[in-house]
Amino acid sequence: MASIFPASSTPMRSDRNTYVGKCFVHVENPYLDSMDEDVLYHLDLGTKTHNLPAMFGDVKFVCIGGSPNRMKAFALFMHKELRLEDAEEDMKDICAGTDRYCMYKIGPVLSISHGMGIPSISIMLHELIKLLYHARCCDVTIIRIGTSGGIGIAPGSVVITDEAVDSFFKPQFEQIILDNIVTRSTELDKELAEELLNCSKDISDFPTLTGHTMCTYDFYEGQGRLDGALCSFSREKGLDYLKRAYNAGVRNIEMESTVFAAMCRLCGLKAAVVCVTLLDRLECDQINFPHDVLVEYQKRPQRLISKFIKQRLGLRDQTS
Amino acid sequence: MASIFPASSTPMRSDRNTYVGKCFVHVENPYLDSMDEDVLYHLDLGTKTHNLPAMFGDVKFVCIGGSPNRMKAFALFMHKELRLEDAEEDMKDICAGTDRYCMYKIGPVLSISHGMGIPSISIMLHELIKLLYHARCCDVTIIRIGTSGGIGIAPGSVVITDEAVDSFFKPQFEQIILDNIVTRSTELDKELAEELLNCSKDISDFPTLTGHTMCTYDFYEGQGRLDGALCSFSREKGLDYLKRAYNAGVRNIEMESTVFAAMCRLCGLKAAVVCVTLLDRLECDQINFPHDVLVEYQKRPQRLISKFIKQRLGLRDQTS
Repeated sequence: MASIFPASSTPMRSDRNTYVGKCFVHVENPYLDSMDEDVLYHLDLGTKTHNLPAMFGDVKFVCIGGSPNRMKAFALFMHKELRLEDAEEDMKDICAGTDRYCMYKIGPVLSISHGMGIPSISIMLHELIKLLYHARCCDVTIIRIGTSGGIGIAPGSVVITDEAVDSFFKPQFEQIILDNIVTRSTELDKELAEELLNCSKDISDFPTLTGHTMCTYDFYEGQGRLDGALCSFSREKGLDYLKRAYNAGVRNIEMESTVFAAMCRLCGLKAAVVCVTLLDRLECDQINFPHDVLVEYQKRPQRLISKFIKQRLGLRDQTS
Repeated sequence: MASIFPASSTPMRSDRNTYVGKCFVHVENPYLDSMDEDVLYHLDLGTKTHNLPAMFGDVKFVCIGGSPNRMKAFALFMHKELRLEDAEEDMKDICAGTDRYCMYKIGPVLSISHGMGIPSISIMLHELIKLLYHARCCDVTIIRIGTSGGIGIAPGSVVITDEAVDSFFKPQFEQIILDNIVTRSTELDKELAEELLNCSKDISDFPTLTGHTMCTYDFYEGQGRLDGALCSFSREKGLDYLKRAYNAGVRNIEMESTVFAAMCRLCGLKAAVVCVTLLDRLECDQINFPHDVLVEYQKRPQRLISKFIKQRLGLRDQTS
């Protein structure tokens, strides 16, 4: 792999915090280049079995979300929005050989599912980042478009994360490496968040705001829910925790943002998290809106991101 | 929900550590019985929309694994093994309304997928345990049949977990509840593990052994792999960690066993973990056996569990 980059690109890749010229996606692993083959096991792709630069070299936007069906729907939506010439029926799941994740390519846009929780998204991100690296991708923007629980905001609101925080409201991610705990920053790209917030101003039929996003390891006990199989705290204690989160600036809770922010930051990917809220956790624990309402809510981040991508590509917006 | 149990069953349910008469699946949540409706959101089931006792009341064995395709294959295999009268084509994904998990029922056996990692399996377990509770199930055995990386044993070996340990080789699971960390025991059912090991003695074409199973939050940095997008330790350090794990009794590594053991133990489910190893981590990091070899490996825990279930049900074994 040592020869995969032209000599001229090397200095730019080493300067990962500034943005001079092309910013290549890079790995932070001195061993990778010496591998004869890299099998991206959970994506069912590999450097010997696939021509990754030819398949993915033009990728500029990567959109990821938990649910495979939702990421397929997003791919179909983007296909329409970008008015691509190839038939919609030709859009195939690139990871069809595995059921761990799904992946679709729509021109310069990749749409990928990541399952639920930090470990699941982390496996996908390791292999996605290596894929983008092997494919010599540059200037890639990555956005997680997900669902979440809101705190003190109307259900259906879209939250653009200004800071991803852990269960203790700290903007950090604790990565266990062997038997050591390493603390990583979860800083996201501020300019990108601002650009997304500006885009949202043209969409009037739902509220979009910026706020901290809390990332937990658990949907029930870790998020103060009273409706799990296990619950050892009182209603008051649970509510107090959510209120303290609100006072610390948290506006929504999900289960992937901290590791997503930490890994993208280390590998030269400008990253954002845009999640719709399906309920207000100060009001209830259960998600029980009618199916069609939830489906419409889940389209909101997709509409915002489509607008953003079209703006970046200089395409005229005909919708919303 | 207060009336869902006949009065006679109440004393038995409170005695969860012994096994006198019927052992009902129970929840450890004082709030659940006062809920008017319980929506099991990620399973697309609920107490008002589904007759859970009628649908699931006879369940005695729950088998779970990460991959939806694998758990469908297991369901089809069990259908054949149990020689059920209903047509194989009638076997439907009970959770078809969602793509988070899949679920199949084969007589007294449930086959469910749980995705990858502690958070993903934990969401499924909360909702599965509530399902079994609402359905008034008793004497339920639950077995995770998964894939794993082996340490110091031949690829294709099946490991029955005698102890689920964390990244620090400790038999415990740290559950974050609100902003507190609570340590839970990961003890599994010893008699069940022994019964499974006895079953394995009749299967001569692959080795089965008992050993500790290490559960990590991450597939790459957390398991000492040199082939992730990020790697900050030396080859020697990584190998030293795996050798220390081996010396502590660890024979395989996966990503779900600690939370699985902890939650099942608290809710009256006799639990076991049976995983096949796809590689020996003392030899390599990448999984690159041919597809058909990996497929055959993944059938091994299924064959063992089928043998066990048929033995429990008093059915004559015609295979293996």
